[in-house]
Amino acid sequence: MDIALVEVSARDGLQNEPELVATADKIRLIERSIDAGLRRIEAVSFVHPQRVPQMADAEAVMAGVPRVPGVSYAGLVFNERGLDRALAAGVDEINVVVVATDTFSRRNQGCTTAEGVERWRALAKRAAASGLRRTVTIAAAFGCPFEGEVSPSAVLDLVHRVAEAEPEEIALADTIGVGTPDRVRTLVAGTLAAAPATPVRLHFHNTRNTGYANAITAVESGASVLDASTGGVGGCPFAPAATGNIATEDLLYALDRMGVTTGVRMDAVADTGRWLAGVLGKPVPALLGRAGPFPAPAA
Amino acid sequence: MDIALVEVSARDGLQNEPELVATADKIRLIERSIDAGLRRIEAVSFVHPQRVPQMADAEAVMAGVPRVPGVSYAGLVFNERGLDRALAAGVDEINVVVVATDTFSRRNQGCTTAEGVERWRALAKRAAASGLRRTVTIAAAFGCPFEGEVSPSAVLDLVHRVAEAEPEEIALADTIGVGTPDRVRTLVAGTLAAAPATPVRLHFHNTRNTGYANAITAVESGASVLDASTGGVGGCPFAPAATGNIATEDLLYALDRMGVTTGVRMDAVADTGRWLAGVLGKPVPALLGRAGPFPAPAA
Repeated sequence: MDIALVEVSARDGLQNEPELVATADKIRLIERSIDAGLRRIEAVSFVHPQRVPQMADAEAVMAGVPRVPGVSYAGLVFNERGLDRALAAGVDEINVVVVATDTFSRRNQGCTTAEGVERWRALAKRAAASGLRRTVTIAAAFGCPFEGEVSPSAVLDLVHRVAEAEPEEIALADTIGVGTPDRVRTLVAGTLAAAPATPVRLHFHNTRNTGYANAITAVESGASVLDASTGGVGGCPFAPAATGNIATEDLLYALDRMGVTTGVRMDAVADTGRWLAGVLGKPVPALLGRAGPFPAPAA
Repeated sequence: MDIALVEVSARDGLQNEPELVATADKIRLIERSIDAGLRRIEAVSFVHPQRVPQMADAEAVMAGVPRVPGVSYAGLVFNERGLDRALAAGVDEINVVVVATDTFSRRNQGCTTAEGVERWRALAKRAAASGLRRTVTIAAAFGCPFEGEVSPSAVLDLVHRVAEAEPEEIALADTIGVGTPDRVRTLVAGTLAAAPATPVRLHFHNTRNTGYANAITAVESGASVLDASTGGVGGCPFAPAATGNIATEDLLYALDRMGVTTGVRMDAVADTGRWLAGVLGKPVPALLGRAGPFPAPAA
């Protein structure tokens, strides 16, 4: 079995950091990720700079990253202005977020869920015409920080609606880290049933220590792509207590041991996690960099 | 579906703490666990006090804990002297550890694996005659800190050998936190096949962020009992980098959301985790106490 990873540290990993991270460090993080074997990098967000100042250097990041055959760069896009920026900056993919609940949708992107679906449709059409790959992400698919429970049927109804605009990938995001494996199974199976030809991608946070169980269950349920963030850094500026993404190195430990192929070198990612802790000046949540691999490498 | 939890914080959770924890605090920890609904408490270890000074007050702990109908206290026993102490202290259950590899077995308890099996047989016989419940734990069942890989067939061979002494429960311990869900499935299924009438118990550490995935997989694979440690504190004095047990409150979050019944109140355990952090004077690894439950309780 194999699975693709999307490295989201430069975007979701850093966007909630209170201190601005230097553009050169973001580029170095991306370079190191590529050196470790990662081939899909969610590098930037074309959000309004006043909303998320940490992402204000999106154009500079994209201007500085290496162009390596087989490596695809993605940027988050929320509106037409963001798509203009994405096209000008030269990303390969866009990721458009539709939030599953109206309250969180208004706070995150200033529109209702239904309006978010319409925005996605319009953006998808223009992006397709421009030759950009398109992912649509359903955020808060496992629960909402403001409205609480989100029913699987509501999420799957939304999957049907966003699928009509022909995304090349449908992502389900547990934005606030509340999901559990049973719900993962239900949503992955339902999404595959709703859009059988479209790869399913999952995005997990380890806020309540269910993130790795969810990721492993997603792989076993038929998901093709997992998001992960080196060091396990991350959070959402508009969701209270939405702590760290699952860590790329810790996810790789489990996947490697289980024989799931990713093409990514765990030891190199763990090194980058330690390096990133130095850049941020604080420990990162990932455990592998502290515990070490198993079995221990020959001395 | 329901499952029993064994609260191991007072034993495995504290045994690796460098500063001695006051006996009164250990008793309070146990009292709080019982108040939260836990009914099996691994309270003490009858290891030689010079080997693990933190466990030297085993008799005082057992003399101070409340005797509540339905609550069962267990102590770790390594040898005849330990069993003498267990009987005198009045535990309800003993837990005898057989280590799956010779190198770790020698370091942990000064004998080979084969000698460990013989010790277990002798202890089981005497404990049964004295009316004590008996668990046998196979330590390093998922990997050894000294020998590396441990094959499932070696573990299952050991299961057959220890099962002959008629334990009331067979526990498989991932002592150093290296296991993954595929291996959990293999070992739980193999143990149930080897000893169909004997409940299977699992003991996980979250050293590399696979502990909760393993625990959930164990439940889904037919295990009847899980160990957990409030706050996620824990470690093994004789295994390098064997950090925290899975946290009772974080495990309860996943089990509660998945509809697995335990009879234990997550909020009360999370409170105890925060209290324990105060006692130890440092943050505990559990995440639920920081992130809070989901959905958020009504204000």
